[in-house]
Amino acid sequence: MKNFDINEDPHRRFNPLINEWVLVSPHRSKRPWQGQNESVATEKLPEYDETCYLCPGNVRANGEVNPEYENAFVFENDFAALKQEEIHFEEDQNERFFKAKPERGISRVVCFSPKHHLTLPEMEAYEIEDIIATWQREYTDLGAVPYINHVQIFENKGSVMGCSNPHPHGQIWAQSSLPTQVEKTQVSLKKYWDQYHRTLLQDYVQEELRSQERIVIENEHFVALVPFWAIWPYETMIISKRNVNKITNFTRAEVADFALILKQLTNKYDNLFETSFPYSSGIHQSPTDGDAHPEWHFHMHFYPPLLRSATVKKFMVGYEMMGESQRDITPEKSAAILRALPTIHYKTNQK
Amino acid sequence: MKNFDINEDPHRRFNPLINEWVLVSPHRSKRPWQGQNESVATEKLPEYDETCYLCPGNVRANGEVNPEYENAFVFENDFAALKQEEIHFEEDQNERFFKAKPERGISRVVCFSPKHHLTLPEMEAYEIEDIIATWQREYTDLGAVPYINHVQIFENKGSVMGCSNPHPHGQIWAQSSLPTQVEKTQVSLKKYWDQYHRTLLQDYVQEELRSQERIVIENEHFVALVPFWAIWPYETMIISKRNVNKITNFTRAEVADFALILKQLTNKYDNLFETSFPYSSGIHQSPTDGDAHPEWHFHMHFYPPLLRSATVKKFMVGYEMMGESQRDITPEKSAAILRALPTIHYKTNQK
Ligand SMILES: O=P(O)(O)O[C@H]1O[C@H](CO)[C@@H](O)[C@H](O)[C@H]1O
Ligand SMILES: O=P(O)(O)O[C@H]1O[C@H](CO)[C@@H](O)[C@H](O)[C@H]1O
Repeated sequence: MKNFDINEDPHRRFNPLINEWVLVSPHRSKRPWQGQNESVATEKLPEYDETCYLCPGNVRANGEVNPEYENAFVFENDFAALKQEEIHFEEDQNERFFKAKPERGISRVVCFSPKHHLTLPEMEAYEIEDIIATWQREYTDLGAVPYINHVQIFENKGSVMGCSNPHPHGQIWAQSSLPTQVEKTQVSLKKYWDQYHRTLLQDYVQEELRSQERIVIENEHFVALVPFWAIWPYETMIISKRNVNKITNFTRAEVADFALILKQLTNKYDNLFETSFPYSSGIHQSPTDGDAHPEWHFHMHFYPPLLRSATVKKFMVGYEMMGESQRDITPEKSAAILRALPTIHYKTNQK
Repeated sequence: MKNFDINEDPHRRFNPLINEWVLVSPHRSKRPWQGQNESVATEKLPEYDETCYLCPGNVRANGEVNPEYENAFVFENDFAALKQEEIHFEEDQNERFFKAKPERGISRVVCFSPKHHLTLPEMEAYEIEDIIATWQREYTDLGAVPYINHVQIFENKGSVMGCSNPHPHGQIWAQSSLPTQVEKTQVSLKKYWDQYHRTLLQDYVQEELRSQERIVIENEHFVALVPFWAIWPYETMIISKRNVNKITNFTRAEVADFALILKQLTNKYDNLFETSFPYSSGIHQSPTDGDAHPEWHFHMHFYPPLLRSATVKKFMVGYEMMGESQRDITPEKSAAILRALPTIHYKTNQK
C-alpha cells in the first residue's frame, strides 16, 4: 500500500478555529478550464470621479454631502443591513422551527482615501496607519454602545467580490449578537484557552514559524501565512505574534508593523496575476460584550477567489455547498508562490 | 417601543438542520445596484455539439469515446477530486494544528440527456424519472463499495455556478467520510430523532403545510418550499412527505411525484427572470455506512444565486464570510413570488 503523501494524495485537513474540515485535491489543479472567465477592469481610474458617491464633496444617495476629507472618512451606511431601533420581542421558548429574533446594529462605511483610484497596496505606510487608527476609533466607539457586542470590520475588494464602487473603502457592521462564524471561533478559542492557558493562535503561530512552510511574510510583530486549513486558493491570515486580543491594544510599533505587512501582502497579491487582486478581508478580535476575553487573539482573514489567472476563479458551488469546501492546490504551494513574489507593486516600474 | 415585525425589521433566523443563524434585512432590497452584472448566455445551443466532451460519440479528455447513449449516461470524472487508491496512514493523536487524513472516493459525471441543448425544466417527466432511476442505481452501487460511507449527488447549473459545459449534467462525489455540511445535519437530525422519535423534517413539513406561507409547490408525496432559514434569495428545498431516508426507498408513485415537482420547480425558476436559471442543487439522504439511520429524511437543496434579475446576483462576501449569511428579501416574499409563477416553461409559447 502506498504511504500518504500530503503533496499528492487527496486528503482532508482540519480547521481548529471553526471546527470544520476541508477537502484538498492536490492533483486537481491540472484539469483544463473551459468555464466562466471574470472580466478585469483595465480602464485607468481618475483621482476624482464626479459620479462616485464616496469621493470628497459629492452627494450621497440620501442627499448628504461628503466633506472634503483628507484621510480615512467614516459615515453611516445609507442602505444598512442593520438598524439601531430597539424592538420589543418576546421569545417563544417552545418554538422548534420558526425561531427568529430581532437584531440591532450599526453599519458604517470607511473610505480609505479621498483618492478614487488608490487601493490599499498602492498607499503609503503612513496612510495605512491612518486607516488602522480609524479602525481602532470605530472599534472603541461602536464597542462602547451598550447593545453592541460585536464589531465586524471588513473589506470587499473588486467587482467579483460584490463591491459596487472601486473607490477604496471597507465596511463595519456592529451588532448585538456574535455572528455565526465568530461564535464558532469563540467556542474553539475558549476551549483551547481553558485547557492550555495560552491562546490557540499564539501556539499555532509558533508551530508555523518552526515549520516555515506556509509563511508568506514575517516582521517583528506580525506573520502573514497561508493557514494549514485554507479554503481559498491564495487565502491568508495576518496574525499578531503577541497574544493581543484587540486592535486597540496594539503598541505603536505593532501599528507600524501591521501597516507594513498589510501593504506588503496586498502588493504580493496584486503581483501574483498582475491585476488589482480581488478579495474579501476581515478582522476577527475580541467581542465588545464587556468580558475580558483572554482567549481571543487578533487576526485578519483574506479570502481571495482567484485560482489560475486574473480571470479564472475557484467556484465554491455544488459539492462545496452541499458537502464541504474543496481546494485544488496545496496551501504549501500557494505559500511558496506568494513568498517568492516581490513586495513592490508591479505597476511601480511601469510609471 | 416598536413591536417586532418579521416582515420589516432586521432579524436573525435559526437553521435547525446545521445549527446556524442567518441575518435577514427585509428593508435592504430597496438599495440600488451599481455593481457587477452577470452575463447571460443567449445563443441558441445545437442538439449536438461536436466540441462537447459530454455529447454521445465524442472523445473525452482521457481519450475515451462516449457511447451513443439515449438516456442518462454515467462515467468516471476525468479530473476527479477524489481517488480510489487505498493510502497507508498513521494518525498522530497529539497533533494539534496540522491535522490531515487521506480521503478515498469516487467521482462520477451524470449526463442527464444526450441532447446538448436540453435542461432539466425542459425535459419530459419520463426523462426526469430516468435520471432519478440513475441516481438510485448510483446510490446503491457506490454505497455498496466497502469504503464509501457517503454519496453526494449534485448539479452545478450555469456558468455563474462554475459549470463549464452547458450540456445537461450533474455529478456524484462518493467518499469515506461524511462531508462537513452532512455531518452537521446528521448531528441535528439524530438529536431530534432521539428526543421525539420522529424525523425533524417530517415535523417541519407538517408545520409548513399548516402555515402555507413558504410553500411553493405541493403534490401527493412531496413539498417544495422556501425554508424559514433560507440563505439564498430564492433558495428552496424539496422534501418528501413520508419519512423516507433514501432515494432507493421511494415507491413508484413517489418517483413520479418527485420527477413532477423537479420539473415544476425548475420551470418556475426559469420563468422568474425568463432565463435559464443558474443554481447548485444537491440531495441529502442517509449515509451509506451500513447503519439504519432512521433520523435521516430525504431532501434536496436548491441554492440559486440570482437576486434581482437574470444578471444581478447576491454576493456572499465580506460580512457573510467573516460573520454570517445575510439575505435582503424575506423567505415568505420569495415563496409568494415563486408560488405565483406558472409551471409551464416561458419558452413554450415562443416556439
Ligand atoms: O467539477 P467541475 O464541474 O469541473 O467543477 C465545478 O464543480 C466542482 C464541485 O462543486 C467545484 O469544485 C469546482 O470549483 C467547479 O468549477
Ligand atoms: O454593502 P455592499 O458593498 O453594497 O454589498 C456587498 O457587501 C455586503 C456585505 O458583505 C453583501 O451583503 C452584499 O451582498 C455585497 O454586494
